[in-house]
Amino acid sequence: MEKSASERKGRVKAQQALREALAQTESQDLHSKIYPMRPIGTIQSCFSTRNGTPRQPLLVSLARACLIFDPALVPPASLEGLEEYSHCWILYVFHLNTDIEKLWRKPSQSKLKAKVRVPRLNGERKGVFATRSPHRPCPIGLTVAKVEEIQKDKVLLSGVDLVDGTPVLDIKPYLPYSDSIQGASVPNWVKEDCQLAVTSVSFSDTFSSSIATCWKLIEKKSLYGSADELKSLITQVLSWDIRSLSQRNKPQDTSDAEIVYHLVLEGLDVSYMIDNESNILVQDVSRPQNLQDVAGS
Amino acid sequence: MEKSASERKGRVKAQQALREALAQTESQDLHSKIYPMRPIGTIQSCFSTRNGTPRQPLLVSLARACLIFDPALVPPASLEGLEEYSHCWILYVFHLNTDIEKLWRKPSQSKLKAKVRVPRLNGERKGVFATRSPHRPCPIGLTVAKVEEIQKDKVLLSGVDLVDGTPVLDIKPYLPYSDSIQGASVPNWVKEDCQLAVTSVSFSDTFSSSIATCWKLIEKKSLYGSADELKSLITQVLSWDIRSLSQRNKPQDTSDAEIVYHLVLEGLDVSYMIDNESNILVQDVSRPQNLQDVAGS
Repeated sequence: MEKSASERKGRVKAQQALREALAQTESQDLHSKIYPMRPIGTIQSCFSTRNGTPRQPLLVSLARACLIFDPALVPPASLEGLEEYSHCWILYVFHLNTDIEKLWRKPSQSKLKAKVRVPRLNGERKGVFATRSPHRPCPIGLTVAKVEEIQKDKVLLSGVDLVDGTPVLDIKPYLPYSDSIQGASVPNWVKEDCQLAVTSVSFSDTFSSSIATCWKLIEKKSLYGSADELKSLITQVLSWDIRSLSQRNKPQDTSDAEIVYHLVLEGLDVSYMIDNESNILVQDVSRPQNLQDVAGS
Repeated sequence: MEKSASERKGRVKAQQALREALAQTESQDLHSKIYPMRPIGTIQSCFSTRNGTPRQPLLVSLARACLIFDPALVPPASLEGLEEYSHCWILYVFHLNTDIEKLWRKPSQSKLKAKVRVPRLNGERKGVFATRSPHRPCPIGLTVAKVEEIQKDKVLLSGVDLVDGTPVLDIKPYLPYSDSIQGASVPNWVKEDCQLAVTSVSFSDTFSSSIATCWKLIEKKSLYGSADELKSLITQVLSWDIRSLSQRNKPQDTSDAEIVYHLVLEGLDVSYMIDNESNILVQDVSRPQNLQDVAGS
């Protein structure tokens, strides 16, 4: 009670400060005007950390997410008709950008780069507006997802490439007649799909028992129906080389076989190795004490 | 000098107030967190008013716009590589929404409707998130345009459906492999294209001299190269019935032939009539004293 009261008070205060800010920006030229955007909801995704989250949508069909709406902004009636579409756009905030707070609090001091390294070009740099990099002056992301089911205050999605906790600003129906452009051309470096497929994905003998144990712990709040379904998700996610550029370009003398990589799905730490022929062996799955410990790996 | 100094002072003040606001929202749950978005630039478009602006992109190939960037946010290097793409996404603010200031200043008091009337359904209502209506909790628009030319601080676009003065939050390259979805399905009411083509567009005898006179007045700052090019634009825009629902559904007893409609392109007031067989006769073009006088018509 007390807590929510003080929260409400904080909200009101924040609103007043924002009104002031807006009133002051009012008089200024459009370029310096600031538009405050309030998320309509939050993504609950199987991807607990950035690492392992697909680099493009619809690549991992089993990648499920639930968009949970803020009831104050999204009454159920506002979703009526969305179920008639197969896909929708999701406009979201790149909230995990490490520079994001500084970008908004001290724009002048945020060292936003004009050019960014492109994974497809093995790190060569392009202008940020020639890429879909998260590090943009307005850190808004655009992705498409499959609409699975509409419920009172949430939408179930699949094929998502969104990390858990992503704030969502807007969803729009996908309209083929205006969104799907026939013969749109792109530079050669984006033509051939950069997603590196791995040779094979197999599991250790102990994996089955490990995931059975873990499943009992997450069953209730999982987006999946069974340990087997979760195993299929792991296979789909690992079917593409999800390692970062720096992880792939490691010193020649270290053999892949020595390194254990980590992937966090549904809050579970999946450890795996990859050999020089890109065969993946999933070793174990466990419930980490603290997600942050594996987030970076 | 004085003016810009006071503007800078206002900006700093606004930033401080925003920082405060952010600090206060910080402690709150994500749903009530506010993300301040600062436009990267502004659209200079041939469409001076909402009326006449196409309801979807790429419909009017001669519809030109120039995205002029805020040099403080968009150094030329950040555009390097964009010229290699044929199309780009534009994320923008629906800045002409009459309810927009209230939405941001007093969210609680803004009467945002959960369902909106759909022109294609002749006014039947659908949930706002099942439409691309401008009247959304986060009034962000998404449209695609053809990339014509990149210059130091601006991008020339065509096929736009954006009104002059639109604040732009972000541009992204159009990536067919993730943005163009084969076999995306939509409800029947959006399947057949709603754009009502007119039967014919012809011009009055006096039109040629009128546009010649007007052209001299706008020539210097126009996005077009000649009066003839401007005439072609007028033909393209009027090739679709751009009248609002209320304009089309007028009392039975009034004949179309009695009504003069107005379209404002490149700051010029184009007056036209439409007969019962949807033949359009462009009567005259003139330089209005005040755009607002014709904006609503």
